[in-house]
Amino acid sequence: MSEKVSYASSGVDINRQDEALKRIKPLVKATKTPGVRSDIGLFGGLFDARFPEAKPILVSSMDGVGTKMKVARRAGIWDTVGQDLVNHCINDILVQGARPLFFLDYIAAQQLEPEVIEQIVKGMATACKAAGAALIGGELAEMPGVYAEGEVDVAGTIVGVVDEANLLPRLEAMAPGDVLIGLPSSGLHTNGYSLARKVCFELEKLDVGDRVPGSDPEKGQTVAEALLAIHRSYLAQVMPLVKAGKLVAMAHITGGGLTDNIPRVLPSTLNAEIDTASWEIPVLFRFLMEKGGLGLDDARQALNLGVGMVLVAKADRVEEILTELHKAEEPAWVMGRLVAGTGVVTYR
Amino acid sequence: MSEKVSYASSGVDINRQDEALKRIKPLVKATKTPGVRSDIGLFGGLFDARFPEAKPILVSSMDGVGTKMKVARRAGIWDTVGQDLVNHCINDILVQGARPLFFLDYIAAQQLEPEVIEQIVKGMATACKAAGAALIGGELAEMPGVYAEGEVDVAGTIVGVVDEANLLPRLEAMAPGDVLIGLPSSGLHTNGYSLARKVCFELEKLDVGDRVPGSDPEKGQTVAEALLAIHRSYLAQVMPLVKAGKLVAMAHITGGGLTDNIPRVLPSTLNAEIDTASWEIPVLFRFLMEKGGLGLDDARQALNLGVGMVLVAKADRVEEILTELHKAEEPAWVMGRLVAGTGVVTYR
Repeated sequence: MSEKVSYASSGVDINRQDEALKRIKPLVKATKTPGVRSDIGLFGGLFDARFPEAKPILVSSMDGVGTKMKVARRAGIWDTVGQDLVNHCINDILVQGARPLFFLDYIAAQQLEPEVIEQIVKGMATACKAAGAALIGGELAEMPGVYAEGEVDVAGTIVGVVDEANLLPRLEAMAPGDVLIGLPSSGLHTNGYSLARKVCFELEKLDVGDRVPGSDPEKGQTVAEALLAIHRSYLAQVMPLVKAGKLVAMAHITGGGLTDNIPRVLPSTLNAEIDTASWEIPVLFRFLMEKGGLGLDDARQALNLGVGMVLVAKADRVEEILTELHKAEEPAWVMGRLVAGTGVVTYR
Repeated sequence: MSEKVSYASSGVDINRQDEALKRIKPLVKATKTPGVRSDIGLFGGLFDARFPEAKPILVSSMDGVGTKMKVARRAGIWDTVGQDLVNHCINDILVQGARPLFFLDYIAAQQLEPEVIEQIVKGMATACKAAGAALIGGELAEMPGVYAEGEVDVAGTIVGVVDEANLLPRLEAMAPGDVLIGLPSSGLHTNGYSLARKVCFELEKLDVGDRVPGSDPEKGQTVAEALLAIHRSYLAQVMPLVKAGKLVAMAHITGGGLTDNIPRVLPSTLNAEIDTASWEIPVLFRFLMEKGGLGLDDARQALNLGVGMVLVAKADRVEEILTELHKAEEPAWVMGRLVAGTGVVTYR
């Protein structure tokens, strides 16, 4: 009378899920920090909330990596997106002054491939360890019919802490004459991938192994290298400046570019005036702009154009900040300043 | 020479994203609690970490709702999955004794439909408000090509806090003779949907408006009502018992059923012996088991079979616990007990 419906015939394979879990357990364990109070398998991840900060404030952020996932699939390289995801989250709370405590992830796919999951989690664990963050929880979901054939998505949440005294931005401390310091991005980071894929793979019909047009034909990056370049974390370089109270604000340049992200930390009485001659737009961005027919205004609102993080400091601290950053091998530069205005970005 | 590639022609429509954001902002704002220290638009959500608990421990969990998303789409009802997601997360940290503080969400789709996003977030906000949790952050992602045509996925992270003294399970306090108390589920909750969809829509060719076969032909639930029944939260009923120290353990019955979830809070020297005659398996589960040809063993490991939460208490406290729960209109019942064993569930 009845057809037997096992979980496998309904499209969900518990064995694949078990195999994936088995592979990621040691990776997750290796990220354990002293604050962690739980092992894998509990319903929730436990983290000690007795912080050394005088007035601790939790800072949290949740994110994905957009259609960079599709580039990963095309190139068959999966560990970088895990790092992208964690670093993106780290930077999002770093701009408020927070150090990361723990991270949780969600990986969902049309079909869970244990070796793909392992590579993604390996990337997440690598980035977590580098930042001293514990990978404390997560969820694997096999969702046939929701995701397109062979596709995977990831999302992650980071929770960090900052002492109220170090919380950024300090809107009341910001004034005309404050200086914008740029820190280079490592590539597109996690934004602009629908555009980049359209230009590279549809319009220009490039293969992931081709070199980026306009780059050195011998030593230039391949399309895969350029598009999968890991979204870097600015934690190590910037946290000492935060703790020393040397910054008044910081903006992580993600979707929306310089144009939309800097205003998120501007008071409504100041503009950020950017000196566009202060850095050279990297070749990948110039290529995407040219072949995509993307004007400067649009590009500045869609791509980071080589600037991944913008620091704002009082003018009299800029020299020591640059010295400190250069000592840490961070090629930071003065890219503009605050002027009286209405809370927007202007370019000159 | 170049074809103009706007974000819209590359498949990502910024206007739709803006429209969705505009719709959800007031919903999110309404969930604000005294601990929240940030407004929407900052890079990270801020929450005051000076807790009244003597030894506060953060408890966090991340989850999705599986292919219940596909039922929502089929029925065109989107607010319930938002509540499912939040309540699932609330229950996952409740079983460790934690009260919820804040929630973050990720909504991704092949194409963001503002009215769908609004309904999903409305559901999340409703559940957050009911639990006193603030919706503190989130991400909307439009990912053409990753999701199947018209499909949406959601994931969420909850962070809560528990005083170390109230942390569950108390493995060392558990002993043979402790009593298992069952609390009814409101339906499938968020598990077993690939199976349920296969049985209802493929094998039995039911429509979402049809009544569940075997239910009252006049007053029985429709398939949509049964499959989209909101994953209930147990917070209000159970938190008073946690705070009063009346429980030694709790298990949230999710994927893996009674068979796999109860052992997550059992010491390796005890079994949970379940009296299967103590409750009646609801009609929806009986229908899915029969038509899916699912044996009892498999069903107990895939579905909650009418039991959404299992409490474990010392025998001498059971009467007062039941009285308290019944007063709160919670039809709790004694469903078994702990016996010497090896950390597994047995049925009799």
